[in-house]
Amino acid sequence: MQGLAASSMLSLTVVVAVFLIGMADHSDGRRRVISSSSNEPCKEMTLYLHDILYNGANNSANATSAAATKPTALSTTHWKNGTFFGTLVVFNDPVTVGKALPVAEAGDEPAIRAQGFYFYDKKESYNAWFGFSIVFNSTAATGTINLMGADLMYEVTRDISVVGGTGDFFMTRGIATLRLDAYEGTVYFRLQMDIKLYECYI
Amino acid sequence: MQGLAASSMLSLTVVVAVFLIGMADHSDGRRRVISSSSNEPCKEMTLYLHDILYNGANNSANATSAAATKPTALSTTHWKNGTFFGTLVVFNDPVTVGKALPVAEAGDEPAIRAQGFYFYDKKESYNAWFGFSIVFNSTAATGTINLMGADLMYEVTRDISVVGGTGDFFMTRGIATLRLDAYEGTVYFRLQMDIKLYECYI
Amino acid sequence: MQGLAASSMLSLTVVVAVFLIGMADHSDGRRRVISSSSNEPCKEMTLYLHDILYNGANNSANATSAAATKPTALSTTHWKNGTFFGTLVVFNDPVTVGKALPVAEAGDEPAIRAQGFYFYDKKESYNAWFGFSIVFNSTAATGTINLMGADLMYEVTRDISVVGGTGDFFMTRGIATLRLDAYEGTVYFRLQMDIKLYECYI
Repeated sequence: MQGLAASSMLSLTVVVAVFLIGMADHSDGRRRVISSSSNEPCKEMTLYLHDILYNGANNSANATSAAATKPTALSTTHWKNGTFFGTLVVFNDPVTVGKALPVAEAGDEPAIRAQGFYFYDKKESYNAWFGFSIVFNSTAATGTINLMGADLMYEVTRDISVVGGTGDFFMTRGIATLRLDAYEGTVYFRLQMDIKLYECYI
Repeated sequence: MQGLAASSMLSLTVVVAVFLIGMADHSDGRRRVISSSSNEPCKEMTLYLHDILYNGANNSANATSAAATKPTALSTTHWKNGTFFGTLVVFNDPVTVGKALPVAEAGDEPAIRAQGFYFYDKKESYNAWFGFSIVFNSTAATGTINLMGADLMYEVTRDISVVGGTGDFFMTRGIATLRLDAYEGTVYFRLQMDIKLYECYI
Repeated sequence: MQGLAASSMLSLTVVVAVFLIGMADHSDGRRRVISSSSNEPCKEMTLYLHDILYNGANNSANATSAAATKPTALSTTHWKNGTFFGTLVVFNDPVTVGKALPVAEAGDEPAIRAQGFYFYDKKESYNAWFGFSIVFNSTAATGTINLMGADLMYEVTRDISVVGGTGDFFMTRGIATLRLDAYEGTVYFRLQMDIKLYECYI
């Protein structure tokens, strides 16, 4: 009898605790959902960031980013072509669900943009650091996701942190795995971002 | 009897779970409190940030911010007056509870300051991105709140993330809703910040 | 009997709730552990950051950081030697467990690095703001910790936020207490970082 009671208590407790953590009874607000394990994100998506660097000459119509600082003199100490050490780039890049960069119509605003900055920070080779927001503005989603972290370019994939969110991504946290998917010289790169969120309010 | 036991188990479990999550028995440390819903912040406040941009000439005594980089050439491609694309501004701005900017006495340090940076990141119009700390240093509160996110200037109000805190704001998270409250040309703006925290240690 | 049942329910509930929060049954993923109190971090470490600023002349082999922007004119308004207001420094600094900076062999990569930026933001005196990642790459740990916050240099110790992590520091949060441990003019400083993490996945 004691054993039976304990067993039914156990299942009841699980139900109640889940209710408390994941389904608070405030039906007019978003409810907090936390993943208890790293292999169960509460939301996943793959997005592509398209960065078109201003070349200082003839691509201003298409360019979506520009260097705000020049490389420091440290940039060429190990390699005469330089590693851009100290170059800070400000960007406002279109982000897409598929790989293709859609042809923009005049006045057209992409439904998803990445707004922020990166800079190069290694004298021996290319390496970068990112701080940016993904801004969603479509019928599918509105709001922002805020990210930061080291872009370890020598690794095929590298993780940065999703440290917050707003709107449909209210208070979210998670991980974005970055992978260089394509590039054209120093003027264009496409970054695949596999985003897994482990804290959501739904 | 089984039903009665289950019922009393339920209420007991609620009490215990709340105790565990929100009121851990370590009376000498701060205790973690998490909002289960987006409409129940654990702390709220409205603050005003006053940014007085250095004009390069005669306002150095009052100025609280200065452009560390010039606008990139992309800044004037869509509008000859420029959108400041790529301009990075470093600031150390007074923050007030009311709207008025108090007359500073020499050696006086405002009780609340915002220290950080913003940069402009859109070639077609004004748009910005913020990373900063609100630094509290008064009898009412000491500590910092750390924020980052896209300042979508074309929206009347826009949300950025509170991603951390220290001191009286130990480990906090939340949302700050920004609204331009007043401005004078390009030299002064006052930003209303409605801050709602959903993770607190109290 | 009712009293006895309640008592055994209570202990059982504690066990189950702890299981739910801290030890989810997904044995193939990391499990979430949250400190309920500010005096019980789930992980602690002390690290030393070594910043060797490029002097623009003869220390390029040893330098690990460089100024990407010049001080603004506001920098000298209160003190003719300047406070570096607006100077943005990009760094890729070695980080050590002990205080000694090991002699680097050619091609040697420190097991721990700090990659990011700081800038000076006060016209009356030195004060700074940090955004960076600590990158671990050794048999002891791999992954990153992401930090940001005001470096209130006038205080002997000051706290910044750990806002996220990856790899062995998946989704972590916490506080890093900074203390200037040593410096040589404006070319070198060693920063002690006492890091306490309060959210871990283990």
